[in-house]
Amino acid sequence: MYKLVELQSGVCSADGFYADGVSAGLKPNGAKDMAFIYSDTLCEVASTFTTNKMAAAPIKHFKAKGAFETNFVLINSKNANAMTGSAGVRDIEEILSTLPSDAINPVMSSTGVIGVRVPKEKLIAGAKLFDLTQQQPQNAAEAIMTTDSFSKQKAYRVELEDGSSFNIGAMAKGAGMINPAMATMLCFITTDAAVTKSEMQEILDEVVQTTFNAASVDGDTSTNDTVMLLANKKSGVYEREVFKEALHAIMLFLAREMVRDGEGATKLVTYNVTGAKDDVEAQKVAKTLSDSLLVKTALYGEDPNWGRIASTVGASGVEAYEEKLTISFDDVCVYKQGELYFDEIMEQKAAEVMKKSSFTISCDLGIANGKFEAYGCDLGYEYVKINADYRT
Amino acid sequence: MYKLVELQSGVCSADGFYADGVSAGLKPNGAKDMAFIYSDTLCEVASTFTTNKMAAAPIKHFKAKGAFETNFVLINSKNANAMTGSAGVRDIEEILSTLPSDAINPVMSSTGVIGVRVPKEKLIAGAKLFDLTQQQPQNAAEAIMTTDSFSKQKAYRVELEDGSSFNIGAMAKGAGMINPAMATMLCFITTDAAVTKSEMQEILDEVVQTTFNAASVDGDTSTNDTVMLLANKKSGVYEREVFKEALHAIMLFLAREMVRDGEGATKLVTYNVTGAKDDVEAQKVAKTLSDSLLVKTALYGEDPNWGRIASTVGASGVEAYEEKLTISFDDVCVYKQGELYFDEIMEQKAAEVMKKSSFTISCDLGIANGKFEAYGCDLGYEYVKINADYRT
Repeated sequence: MYKLVELQSGVCSADGFYADGVSAGLKPNGAKDMAFIYSDTLCEVASTFTTNKMAAAPIKHFKAKGAFETNFVLINSKNANAMTGSAGVRDIEEILSTLPSDAINPVMSSTGVIGVRVPKEKLIAGAKLFDLTQQQPQNAAEAIMTTDSFSKQKAYRVELEDGSSFNIGAMAKGAGMINPAMATMLCFITTDAAVTKSEMQEILDEVVQTTFNAASVDGDTSTNDTVMLLANKKSGVYEREVFKEALHAIMLFLAREMVRDGEGATKLVTYNVTGAKDDVEAQKVAKTLSDSLLVKTALYGEDPNWGRIASTVGASGVEAYEEKLTISFDDVCVYKQGELYFDEIMEQKAAEVMKKSSFTISCDLGIANGKFEAYGCDLGYEYVKINADYRT
Repeated sequence: MYKLVELQSGVCSADGFYADGVSAGLKPNGAKDMAFIYSDTLCEVASTFTTNKMAAAPIKHFKAKGAFETNFVLINSKNANAMTGSAGVRDIEEILSTLPSDAINPVMSSTGVIGVRVPKEKLIAGAKLFDLTQQQPQNAAEAIMTTDSFSKQKAYRVELEDGSSFNIGAMAKGAGMINPAMATMLCFITTDAAVTKSEMQEILDEVVQTTFNAASVDGDTSTNDTVMLLANKKSGVYEREVFKEALHAIMLFLAREMVRDGEGATKLVTYNVTGAKDDVEAQKVAKTLSDSLLVKTALYGEDPNWGRIASTVGASGVEAYEEKLTISFDDVCVYKQGELYFDEIMEQKAAEVMKKSSFTISCDLGIANGKFEAYGCDLGYEYVKINADYRT
């Protein structure tokens, strides 16, 4: 038995962590565009990065360091520092070299436009504004936003049965489950749990699969996607399964928040796939559904067009049969194993479900026990608007 | 040496072929919604169908016939006869049984809404309006349209060096390179060339790869996609390579017409990928580009955002390196092997190219000789509008 107590202090929730956001003049009107996370003792780091072959300079810089401990992460928005070659990595080194000596082995993370050198002078000047004694997680969470319409944080105190506890806090950005290639998904998690580096990497790799990787992340993987977990171990407390569950709760919350904040999105839809040949096939169906333009536009139109769901299941490439498939919108079953009973009453009931801002589409393939849950949203005019003139 | 002479008579161009379109009351306002293609002698048939596991009833009916010759194809729009189970196949049998005895082994093809039984009585009454002596290819091409904004036909007389000739004609429907899952791609080709069944199937399978399958056909494969080639051999003339080239010209034209007529599309873009590890990897890049929401919305916004092109190449999963990649918009090179020379002048030049209704985006991966050309379009507000209320 353990207890999760929600905290309001984001990445500053764990003992010894500091964070703030400042304006370096990258965003217009003095909006915050640069953040730091600082720990007053060294941290071990677990991370997962984009699989994009054009991985951005900050990721190259991080990976080139090999095994290391750090206590400082610098983050900027508005410029992704991607497709900037070795010059992009040198820019990072130069910027980080100007930080105060309290920052040990600092690393950087960026999000924004691809293919433009970072404004080095502005970032160096911005970093001079950092006050490492500040605990302003809200400022930091705002500074890393791009097309996000709200900031995203979550933190827990994890209380174990023996009365001991540790904290985990996180912030994330991304309105990009629809298209993480541009909007980029970044997530920074801090903890004072006494977890080892190898164990936290193992847990992070596992948890990311059913959280961020289930959040309608399609083939368009960003050049900058990053999840970074920093542990300074100050609490001296750790219990593997509890740590994993708390981490899962935080990452799932943030993943769903990203989907809810999807560019132009008005609905958060859970795709609950069951009865597939195995979990891998269920995941394939769930992701194909959450990425389908046809399904997304039907959601936006609040059109209970279950034929598009069926067609998308059929197109996903997995084992599937018309006469074994069952489709429901929340608890309204619209198609059951070959029975066409979608009359006007049924259509009206399904249309009622689709008017909700959050609901579940269930597909049972009726073959075996494979299952997976994915999270997606609709696609409307606003998505086109945001993406047709992002750069300008 | 041979000569292709363009003809204006679509699927009635080849000797002995008849076609017409009528209104059976499926579309509103008496618009044509039912077509036939008839040959006064039996034809051998080559075909390619959707790989969707929820293949529609007409495809199940066709495949269940095994090897056969026919002289009659019945086509309807507005209802896909998909997800209708064995009842859907029985509906087809019943409808076809009411045709005049001139129709030997008739087959059916459908496009429209998924998951609704076909209005059998209307289709039987509609078929009674058919006059098999009519050669009205334009009527037939119009009757099979759904969200298409124009009808699509192409035909050639193929003149060989010795003075002999044969004809090939075709009609197609589909505004659905963006989302063939709904709009469905149908294409019917007729010829009097003396081609054998096995040879024409072989050629069709090959040609479809670089034509319809290159036209931004993404994972959302329709339940109804069909390409059918009917040969009555009346000309007695045939030459393999010439037949293949003429067929390729017709199918490429129709594939590009479909993209140009893409739902809400304003631009036809050719993705010319070269320098990949092999042709398969080049195809993967070209298709990922033509299907990317990010790229499509940038095209719509006429934003020369080459960073999205680079990111999408990186996300496609093939071997690729930032320092070997070169990207051009027509003849304006915007990124060359690590060189960032995208200044304001270059941006203006690239923006000029993007204002055109048709242009080429070239990506050279600089690795080996793999190449592929794909065809795509932009995605704008109109796409969302069409798809958010297709059924209603």
